[in-house]
This record gives sequence, structure tokens and C-alpha cells, in this order.
Amino acid sequence: MRKLILLAFLAGAVHAEEKVLRYVPKHEELKYTFGGAAPTHHVPPGTRIVSWTEDCYDGAVTKPDQLPTKVIPPGHDNPQTGPFYIEGAEPGDTVAIHINKLEPARDHGISSFFPGFGALNRTDRTAVLGSDLPEKVWFYDVANGMARTRSLDGRLTWEIPLAPFLGCLGVSPGLEVRSTVVPDFFGGNMDCPEVRAGNTVYLGVNVPGALLSFGDGHYAMGDGEIIGTAIEGAMNVDLTVDLIKGRKTEWPRIENAEWMMTVGAARPLEDAARVAFREMVLWVRETSGLSEMDAYEFVSQAARAPIVQMVDPEYTVMVKIEKRRLPRLVSAATVR
Amino acid sequence: MRKLILLAFLAGAVHAEEKVLRYVPKHEELKYTFGGAAPTHHVPPGTRIVSWTEDCYDGAVTKPDQLPTKVIPPGHDNPQTGPFYIEGAEPGDTVAIHINKLEPARDHGISSFFPGFGALNRTDRTAVLGSDLPEKVWFYDVANGMARTRSLDGRLTWEIPLAPFLGCLGVSPGLEVRSTVVPDFFGGNMDCPEVRAGNTVYLGVNVPGALLSFGDGHYAMGDGEIIGTAIEGAMNVDLTVDLIKGRKTEWPRIENAEWMMTVGAARPLEDAARVAFREMVLWVRETSGLSEMDAYEFVSQAARAPIVQMVDPEYTVMVKIEKRRLPRLVSAATVR
Amino acid sequence: MRKLILLAFLAGAVHAEEKVLRYVPKHEELKYTFGGAAPTHHVPPGTRIVSWTEDCYDGAVTKPDQLPTKVIPPGHDNPQTGPFYIEGAEPGDTVAIHINKLEPARDHGISSFFPGFGALNRTDRTAVLGSDLPEKVWFYDVANGMARTRSLDGRLTWEIPLAPFLGCLGVSPGLEVRSTVVPDFFGGNMDCPEVRAGNTVYLGVNVPGALLSFGDGHYAMGDGEIIGTAIEGAMNVDLTVDLIKGRKTEWPRIENAEWMMTVGAARPLEDAARVAFREMVLWVRETSGLSEMDAYEFVSQAARAPIVQMVDPEYTVMVKIEKRRLPRLVSAATVR
Amino acid sequence: MRKLILLAFLAGAVHAEEKVLRYVPKHEELKYTFGGAAPTHHVPPGTRIVSWTEDCYDGAVTKPDQLPTKVIPPGHDNPQTGPFYIEGAEPGDTVAIHINKLEPARDHGISSFFPGFGALNRTDRTAVLGSDLPEKVWFYDVANGMARTRSLDGRLTWEIPLAPFLGCLGVSPGLEVRSTVVPDFFGGNMDCPEVRAGNTVYLGVNVPGALLSFGDGHYAMGDGEIIGTAIEGAMNVDLTVDLIKGRKTEWPRIENAEWMMTVGAARPLEDAARVAFREMVLWVRETSGLSEMDAYEFVSQAARAPIVQMVDPEYTVMVKIEKRRLPRLVSAATVR
Repeated sequence: MRKLILLAFLAGAVHAEEKVLRYVPKHEELKYTFGGAAPTHHVPPGTRIVSWTEDCYDGAVTKPDQLPTKVIPPGHDNPQTGPFYIEGAEPGDTVAIHINKLEPARDHGISSFFPGFGALNRTDRTAVLGSDLPEKVWFYDVANGMARTRSLDGRLTWEIPLAPFLGCLGVSPGLEVRSTVVPDFFGGNMDCPEVRAGNTVYLGVNVPGALLSFGDGHYAMGDGEIIGTAIEGAMNVDLTVDLIKGRKTEWPRIENAEWMMTVGAARPLEDAARVAFREMVLWVRETSGLSEMDAYEFVSQAARAPIVQMVDPEYTVMVKIEKRRLPRLVSAATVR
Repeated sequence: MRKLILLAFLAGAVHAEEKVLRYVPKHEELKYTFGGAAPTHHVPPGTRIVSWTEDCYDGAVTKPDQLPTKVIPPGHDNPQTGPFYIEGAEPGDTVAIHINKLEPARDHGISSFFPGFGALNRTDRTAVLGSDLPEKVWFYDVANGMARTRSLDGRLTWEIPLAPFLGCLGVSPGLEVRSTVVPDFFGGNMDCPEVRAGNTVYLGVNVPGALLSFGDGHYAMGDGEIIGTAIEGAMNVDLTVDLIKGRKTEWPRIENAEWMMTVGAARPLEDAARVAFREMVLWVRETSGLSEMDAYEFVSQAARAPIVQMVDPEYTVMVKIEKRRLPRLVSAATVR
Repeated sequence: MRKLILLAFLAGAVHAEEKVLRYVPKHEELKYTFGGAAPTHHVPPGTRIVSWTEDCYDGAVTKPDQLPTKVIPPGHDNPQTGPFYIEGAEPGDTVAIHINKLEPARDHGISSFFPGFGALNRTDRTAVLGSDLPEKVWFYDVANGMARTRSLDGRLTWEIPLAPFLGCLGVSPGLEVRSTVVPDFFGGNMDCPEVRAGNTVYLGVNVPGALLSFGDGHYAMGDGEIIGTAIEGAMNVDLTVDLIKGRKTEWPRIENAEWMMTVGAARPLEDAARVAFREMVLWVRETSGLSEMDAYEFVSQAARAPIVQMVDPEYTVMVKIEKRRLPRLVSAATVR
Repeated sequence: MRKLILLAFLAGAVHAEEKVLRYVPKHEELKYTFGGAAPTHHVPPGTRIVSWTEDCYDGAVTKPDQLPTKVIPPGHDNPQTGPFYIEGAEPGDTVAIHINKLEPARDHGISSFFPGFGALNRTDRTAVLGSDLPEKVWFYDVANGMARTRSLDGRLTWEIPLAPFLGCLGVSPGLEVRSTVVPDFFGGNMDCPEVRAGNTVYLGVNVPGALLSFGDGHYAMGDGEIIGTAIEGAMNVDLTVDLIKGRKTEWPRIENAEWMMTVGAARPLEDAARVAFREMVLWVRETSGLSEMDAYEFVSQAARAPIVQMVDPEYTVMVKIEKRRLPRLVSAATVR
């Protein structure tokens, strides 16, 4: 018998009566780090959190003629709703976050270029000489499943299908306190389009209570997020948190009925990919019992691996495997 | 009126009577470099080439118990069919290759791990100490649209849907002669799954006649090609070559009715991505008339960007844009 | 007249009577982060701190047969002495640390290989498959200006000249709290051999009081620190801290009578180098009045640029310019 | 007894009568590739070659107001003197090149910035958007052991001590033909300051006769060669070539009485460093008999590792070990 369920999302099964927390943070309750902030709520595993989160601009950009660098207070990128203290969570456990629903909370999304931040321009680390590109802002109308904007001269227009997800979903890193622009083993600013409704995200717990938070609503984003921002906007968030005791998770994993996915974070980009691929090799081995070399071969032929973003302090790569392609026992395969 | 056709594939339109070259190379006619070899044929633009190409193992691996490193002569990776001298092609022109059909020419495909080559192991450049992983070979049965194999201990099985493409398609680099394991601006060993039937590939011409060749049939491959090989096999190849005079192509472009695609090659992986993304920004500008900043924004929100491979001497990344998302004039959009 | 002094070390000049703080921390006073810890002392600018710091192993390795991973509590790498709150220091100022004297505080130094940490082996980010190298420890006898050890089988011996420096010297990063294995714009675990007696280090202030700390005594180290550790040991530390009000410092700078030096931190290694080179171009321009292109040319011909380390979460590169090579006015040069 | 001589330079010892080849190439005899060109001379091992080589600009820049991109024919970078067919050289052997003397052949050196080439600006691979820096040229007067130039506005001046070396010294790569801007395992455009008078360079042979060539005279250069050029100039070259039969050399090694040095080439820069460090670990093991872990430790504490250049298609890093620091037998050490 093949083990179809990889990491069970246990909320529905285990918790007889769902507890619901409804919470819209006041602006002064928003957080700007992973770790280092006191929780806003303590919630038992199985809690459904129906909430809201501000956009990456801290809500400070309200008109197209505002330059983000002029109106956002320093250090106020990607404000977080939370953190939530998950009762019973201890280092060595895994938090499972099932995303029930994500809905744009505004009728417009905002994208912009920040000088010194992006994939096709000079940055603080890819530190070239000469002048930088100019700061620019695009407002997108959000309607009928589409985000539509115009070119800066107003002459051309394009539209992008909405595909809402959370740019940030993370727990406390443990020893460190990290900015909300950083993705890493603790999740964080992964900017991963699969942190979306219908999917379950698994994050390892590093401190008691895990201290889960989310933010940075993305209405849509291309692979690479090359200009440094998605189509950004406040988001209505509906998710259920659960706890898997005694199971370690080294790097974020994501799962739904059809796919298993890993996210790696590092620079250079090949190291982010190596992390995600190695984690997938491990996950396939756990699931199928393959040897290391066989799992290396299987993932090599079966994986999808989009570049997620190459602008944050660590780049992120996602590796995906379709579950129905997973190896099965020869005997079982024969009788299928 | 919006310009829907980006780079026309001209063969059908321009050439009244199709010329067909039918050619199956003898083994001793195969080539192991891009550039540096005399052409096997001179063909006028518009020629349909119905041919065949050997697998990446130079045809030397015929049984699962043969280790590739023992049976392949040194320097005999990715043997090429061709090169073909395209009449009239001069530096500054573009060769357009429309792939009509690709068909596995054998009932089995072969994958293997070569020590020192791959993404999750030591290589000649990521030169770590300690012992390497062992050389291993997997034979896949090819039938019913699937490639199926077993684990090394025979206990487990998996199957991968066939998705045939050419790992190598390239022209002479010009000054240099490059090994057939190398991808770069001249195409070459791009290992790109979109070099497949139905698509048109554009390569810039660097020497008179271009000297086009192809090889390295892939029956299927995961993103990243992390173990260093796809499911490899000889391929029946049917393609039409054409010539666009006076049009430069800096980096390979690929196109079909729905998508426009660029391929970048470099190390580290973020530079391969930068090349492909920058080229896409340029292509979008040529097509739509967007400003640089607007095109940067559009591609940032609309692109797909899979890691193609991270094992060859240059890594490759592909950037894809769906044509129907391309910006259009505001007035045209309104009346649509 | 050419401006020979670049960034004056002001302590001697400005502060009439030197204040001296003598402080040997108890073990429980040691810190394991940059930022996030309450200061042990408040000191006015000009204070001389005569102190001591533990080795990178938290003092837990006392015999060659102890494996560091077994005896060091998790998160207890590179314990810091301090932090010291420098009175009057505000964001936008620069702290100048003049190192008066560094002296090995023990008669032996310790080096070791930690699995998963190093430049020529698999790490958490360069995540290859297969087995890792084994954990090993070398004790060095420290005497007569030399550190001497034996091979693991006792058959061979080598010795390295002592060249003591502080692996860690840093201030609070500001928003974040970083582990003491991390170097970055705030200094930190730079592992830079020029953080040594006779030199002055400049660090930008990110929080009131700066919160300066130091640790990770190195008795000697090769460029790259490739095995992941230097010849490590507790250190007697004698340094004077001063404050330059209203001067920003983006990246660490180091200076003595002959040399000006910048330190960049990033991955990949070329980005660490870009940071350090760009900072040097800026410093040369500030000092000499050269244009950007001229400064680019001058640094290109005059710089020394050793790899500092390529094992920490950010790699570090140092760029050095000999002051007597700095450009001077043509007229001044003529009359020289 | 400790083996002090690592790789003997055998010319003096073995060859009773020195053969001398005096040769100044005509311009039309210069070559622009490693590999792919017919030899100008056949020379027996032990031959002293007294010759000359043109500057990297193909001799086309003769006045400061000439832009290199306007006057150099495409593909004419780094013209080579040679190649020389070394009699008896076969794949698997090593060529030893002892550099007797290098002397600037002109009274001026030239440096310049090429748009798209350099470490602190956009390139064809680090493909950022926006405008590039402007092309600029600096002429240096060469006299009294110094190269002196002025800023572009003529207001400032600086001087750099002469330290002549050959930017290019290489053999045929074997299967491939590479541009003379490329360094790799075959040597080539290493831009390494230790390819200087007094040193011996070892290169592995890949084709019969090796096909050795040299060029790209550098009068002086900073580490990193960040603007893309050294202080460039034609060079009088006096070197002796010799052959070590049956000894493989995977990567370039350099040696003199005091130092052993390895050169690695790759991107990203950490991989160039890994190659050079790994090669040094191997060389130390061959010389001393250390185990792998001990050699890893020894090199970690004893190495110097400057960035050589980070502008060519592969970056180069050099690793140096002082011979007198090499491990010795414990008994020998005791009686010393």
C-alpha cells in the first residue's frame, strides 16, 4: 500500500470543535520582524484565524504620486499580523498552516521600483558604480479577477490575472530576530506564490509558541519578482493553524492534494536551489523509501523548479513534485 | 492594431516549394563541438531537415550494467548531427529553426549519474573534499507516452510522461570552438524543454553559413536536470530552418503561438536569470513600445522563470511571457 | 596640501584624561548576538577598555578528545564581551575602535572542523548529497610567537606564526538581532586579520549607544578560513573606543598609518568583493577628490584584495590601499 | 628527510646545452585563441625563448584620445605570441615554464574601461538595466620603476610601482578552442601577478606539443583587476620551457624558492577559490604525506588567497603557501 498522505493536515481530523479567532490588527499592533515581538494572541492548535494584513508599504502609499521611500518610515516594510503564540508548540515540533481563503482587501494593488532593490539593477550587494534607475510606482485596478494598470506615460495598458498569496508567513528564527524582508529556514518573506488558499505550509518551531505571523499580501507576481515588488495589497486572511508534535522541519514545505513542494533560501541562487532540491530528495525518501541515489534520479526527472524571487536578502527557489508521480512498490504497481 | 506576431517564422510564407533533406548520419559523421567542424550539407533557407540524432552517450551505453565513464570515448558527449551550412547566412542575421516533430528513436531511454557532474554533488568547480557519489545507470522503458524505470534494488518503480526535446541545438560561436556540453549565446547544450516540436528557436549567426547542429535527445527531464542527465535517447528529428536577414539575435529566443521565451546562460545562476530577464525586457520593448521601466514592471508581474539546468559549464534559465498578456494601446484595449 | 589623515582617530587628541574600564566578564555575562542584549557598561567616548574575551567554543573545549558539537550548548558560538553602551552615540554617527593590544590569554589554541561548516565541504546552503567529512580537533601549543600542532596520527608537525586578531567586533545592526557567526555592515564576525593591534576600526552606529561588543579571539588564520575555524583562543583585549559625531559609515573601514581598508560582506563572494571595492572607490573619492571613473581606475591598479573568509553566513573580502599611493594634486606632486 | 623540492624545474639540470630561440612575431603572426592555431615553432624541452609580445589592445591604441572599441578589430584582444610546439609533449605530461625576465617594451602603459566589462558595472552576464559607464582611457608614463598617470581632468596624479607579468600564458585546452580573454584549467588569461620573472608555471598538456603561447603584458595591476584592464603594455619576454613526462597537472601551479601557488578559475568567485584551495590541499598532501583532514586544516591556517581578477569569463583566485611552513616529520622537527 502506497502512503499517499505525506504530512497530514490534522486540523479537521483531530479537533472536534473548531475555535475561531477573528482579529483585525490596529496599525500600531503591526510587527516588522520575525522573532523579537510579544504575541498578540495565544491560540490552541486547530484554531482558525480570520484576519487581515496590511500591504508591504505599511499602508503609507495611498496615491500613485507618492514615492514609497518618502512616505514609509524606515524599517516598516512588510508589516506582520501577529505573532500568534501556538499553545504547546516547542522546538522540534512543526506548525502546519492551512490557508482557507485569501482575498484582496482593496480595489487596487500597488507595485513600485525601489532604487537599490531589484534583480536587474544595482543593489547594496551587487554594488556597481554609476547611477541607479529611478523610483517609480504603478497602481493596478483590481476587478473581475484581474489587476490592470497603465504605462507611466498612460499610453499602454496590461492586465495580470489575480493569484493572491502571502509574501510573508513565518515563525521566530530562534536565536535571531530577522527583518520582514528576509526569507530563510523559518519561512518569512518567501514571496512564494504557493502560500495560497488551498495549500498547507509546514514550518519548524524554534521557540516555545512558534510565534507565527503573516503579511505582505500579493495579488499577483511573476517568477523572480525582478523589480522587487509584486502587485501588493492588503489581504483578508483566513487560515487554520495546527501543530505536529515531535516532527522536525528543517526547511519550509508546502503541500496540497496534488503537489508536494519545498522552498530553499540562500545566495547565490544555485544554493537556494540546492537547498530546495536536497530537501525534496529527503522528502521523497521519507515518503517512498527510495535510496539516496534513486531519489536523486527521480527528483531529477520529475521536479518543477521555478525561481521564486531573486531580490530579497536571500533568494528563494521552489521545487515541486506531483504526488501521483511518486515511486511505488513494484508489486503494487503491477496490480494497479 | 497590436502587433501580435513577434518574430515571424517565415518558411511557410516565403518559400514556394519546400526543399527536404533526408539524412541519417553515420556514427563517424557525428561532431563533438559547436564550431570547428566542416558542414555535412549546404542547405538553402526554408529547407526541411528530416534526420536523426544519437543519444548523449554517443550510443555507447547499450546495457544497464555498462558504466558510461568506461564505455564513452573521452570528449564524445552529446554527439551532433550536422553542422548544416545555411546558404546566405552571415554574421548579423538570425537563423530560425522550426521544430516540426521529435520522436524517440528507441524503446528505452537512459539516465545516469557521472561522478563530478551534477547539482547536488561535488564537481570540478564546486570542488569540495571527501568522496563523491557512485556512478549509477537507470534504463527506462519507453511506451504509451511514458518512460518507466525501477529503483536500483528493483523494489520500486516510477514513470515520467514523455516530453521529447533536443538538449542541444546550436550554431558556431564564432571565434571559439566549444564542447557540446556547453550552452551559451550560440544556443548549444541549453537542455531547454521548450526546444520541442511546435516551437521556433531563434539563434544569432556568428559565421558565414551559421553551422547549425543538433543532438542530445531528451525523452523527458525535470527542471534543473540535477543529476546531470535527462532520460536520454536517440531521436528522430524533423525541423525546418529559415533565415532572417539583417536581424541580430544576442541570446536564444523561442516562440510559439502562445508564448515568447528567452534563454540565458551563465554562472552563478542569478546571472543566467539576469541575462534571460534582461533579454525579455528588451523583447517586450521591441514588441510593445514600452519604456524600460514599464517593461521591467510588466515582466516582473507576468513572467514565468523555471530553472532549466544547473549542471553544465554555464547554467541555463528560461523566462516566458504569455503573448496575450502583452501590453496594448489604451485605445485599442478600450474598444476591444 | 594633500590630506593624509583620512578618518582621524580622535581619542588621544580630544580627551584630556583617559578613562579606563577594566572588566573581565563572568561566563554568564557573555552574549551570543549582535543587538538584543542589555549593555554591561556605559562608557563615554575616549574610554580605554582593558578586558578579556572567551574563545569561539564558549570555553567548552578543554581537551583534544572533546568534540565541539558535543560540548558547546546550541547557539553558544563566538561569545561576546559587552555590549558597551557608548554615551552620546546615535544613528548616523561612527564608532572608532582603536585596538591597543591583543594577547593570547591561553598557552594553547584550538582549531576544528564542524560538519556542515567550511568552504571545501557540504554546508546547509551548498547542500550536496552524500556523507560529510568527520569532525576533528587540533590543539596548538602557543609559545615563542608560534602556534604548533601535530597531524591527527601524530606523525607530522607544523607551525604558524602568531598574528592575533579579533574574529568578532560589532555593533547592534538596528532592527535585527544577528547571531555572532554573522558578519555584515555592522561588523560582527568579520574574521578579518586586520582587526588587530595598531589598527582603528570604524563602524556605523545603528542604535543609541551603538552597543559594541567583541569576541572570537584568533591567534592566527589563513585567508579564507576554509576549514571554518582559525587557531582559536581566549584573548586579552585592550582597546579605546571613540565617537565621530555626524559621520555615517555604511560598511566597516579599517585604517592605520600606512593603509586604508574596507570590508564587504555578502554571498556570492564576488558580491562581497563588489561591496568592499565600491566602498574603497567612495573612500578614495572622499579623500582625494577623484571623479568616479578615475577612482575606479586608481583602485583597479592599486588595491590588494584578499579573501577573508568564505565560511560564515556572509562571506567577507577586504580591500586595501596603501596611503602613500593615493592621488595628489599635480602641482603638489611637481614640487614634491 | 623532508622533500623540499616540490616540482623540480629541470631545465638547468637536465639539458647540457641550452638552445635559444630568438623570435619577435610580426603582427600578422599573432594569435587570438588558445588552441586552434598552427604552431609558429617546434622547440625541444629546455629551449630558452627570447621574444616579445604585443599589448592587450593588439597594438591598436597609440594615443590617449583613441577609444579601444573603435580601433581594435573584433576578437583581437590579448594577441598571443606562439603557439610553440614543445617536442615530445603528450596529453598527461606537464609543461614547466620558467620565466627568466620580463621587461616593459614601451615607455608607456595603457589602461581603459570597456563598457560591459568590469567588476563594478553591468556586463553581458551581470545584465542590469540602465545606462553603462563611459569608455575611458588612461596613459601611464613608465620610468624609474613606476607607472604614472593623471586624472581625466588633469588635476590629480598617481603612480603605481611596476610589477611586470604576463596576463596570458596558456596551452591548448584540447577539444575546445578558447578566446584569449578566457582563463581556465589550461592557464590562458589568468591575469595572475605571479606569472612573473623568477617563477615557474606548470600547465598540463592536452594535445601533442602542448601549443604554448603568451601575451597580454601587464606592467602592474591591482588585485581584482576591477576596471577590466591592468596597466597594459607590450613586453620583452625571456622564458625557458621544459617538459615533465608522465606527470598530470589538472590546474595551473606556480612555484619559486619560497612559495607554492595554485590558480583556480570559475564563477561564482567562491568556486574559483574552491578550485584553487582544493588543488593546494592536494599539492600539500603530495608533498608532505598529510591526510586529507590534516591538509585541510594546515591550508586553512597557512594560506594566502588574493582575488586575482573578477572580470574575465571565469574569475581567478590564487592560493599561496610558504614552503618553509610545510609540515615535516615530528622526528626531523625535533632534531632541527
